[in-house]
Amino acid sequence: MAAQHRPITIGVAGGTGSGKTTISNALLTRVGEHHIAYLPHDTYYKDIIHIPLYEGRIRNFDHPDALDTHLMVANIEELQTGRSTEIPVYDFREHKRLPYTHTMGPQPIILVEGILIFAEPELRKLFDVKIFVDTDSDVRFIRRLQRDIAERGRTAESVIEQYLKTVRPMHLQFVEPSKRYADIIIPEGGFNTVAIDMVADRIRTMLQNQER
Amino acid sequence: MAAQHRPITIGVAGGTGSGKTTISNALLTRVGEHHIAYLPHDTYYKDIIHIPLYEGRIRNFDHPDALDTHLMVANIEELQTGRSTEIPVYDFREHKRLPYTHTMGPQPIILVEGILIFAEPELRKLFDVKIFVDTDSDVRFIRRLQRDIAERGRTAESVIEQYLKTVRPMHLQFVEPSKRYADIIIPEGGFNTVAIDMVADRIRTMLQNQER
Repeated sequence: MAAQHRPITIGVAGGTGSGKTTISNALLTRVGEHHIAYLPHDTYYKDIIHIPLYEGRIRNFDHPDALDTHLMVANIEELQTGRSTEIPVYDFREHKRLPYTHTMGPQPIILVEGILIFAEPELRKLFDVKIFVDTDSDVRFIRRLQRDIAERGRTAESVIEQYLKTVRPMHLQFVEPSKRYADIIIPEGGFNTVAIDMVADRIRTMLQNQER
Repeated sequence: MAAQHRPITIGVAGGTGSGKTTISNALLTRVGEHHIAYLPHDTYYKDIIHIPLYEGRIRNFDHPDALDTHLMVANIEELQTGRSTEIPVYDFREHKRLPYTHTMGPQPIILVEGILIFAEPELRKLFDVKIFVDTDSDVRFIRRLQRDIAERGRTAESVIEQYLKTVRPMHLQFVEPSKRYADIIIPEGGFNTVAIDMVADRIRTMLQNQER
């Protein structure tokens, strides 16, 4: 069944470690998960053999070509017309897409998150509200280092190598320039309750206006 | 008579020509002027003879010492406790404060605007929401040039001299670093209706919560 109103599509972008997932989670909690179709760009990673290589050696997960943005655009467009859609499921341990999909029903709010979502013109034009989470690069690196050591058992040396060879150059080439397309910029990420309150209020008002 | 609730104090900062006055006016219109005590920092300019000099020749209107911030803090604190306050009146043609004041009654929202309001710690700590309007410096200069020629009959040469000698250095020294204290950053100023809708919704929700 089609929804009565066109859903509102919100994008949350920002560099690695910027706090965008914390912002997205805070919005899911405050507005209510049952109102929101949540789509992280990460779910659209290509299989490891199709991830671009840096110097023929390190996989470059931060390049736009590592992600199947075309499929994400198709999924969002389907949700925007009020239909269900089939979302890919990615195995992050094996770095490959699984042979089944996850059915996502239409919702009044579509929340899209990822470092590169404003860098892709076909994706960018789908958003009603574009939020960029802006955190200093040293703080972002420290968060990534701590997360990759704690959650992924990586060594500091391997995190630093990946950061300097692919994460940082891709940030400067694609992520940072895409900040220009943001409607609002939130400094410091998930600890910024003033900004989270503001975005949550806007979403709630948009929901109320839809219900009228 | 004292107001029933502590008013909400919102600061709108940003460089010359950033569009902060347009943002403030849009908020006044959308939220309703009758709810808002509007205080531009400009009203607190000191008399011309107390404005700091650049190289003993050009008055530096963009230095924090050009403004009577101490009086502004006192006015805001009085409004925050729900009392009326006496606002100075400034004659921009003669560059001096007039010998009478304007009585401002308490309001649920206090909206403060100025290039330097986040650069002053005693002022900064009064805000519940700090908004920085961020516009590229070339666009800001062009807007200032057009305004000063059209509205103040200045020559391009004199606008450029003032800009390079005082406006720009003060921006880099005081205004730009104060962006760090913002809760949200609005790119492009008054044309950004997505951001204006968001701030207006937040103010309206705060007003509704006060009324409960």
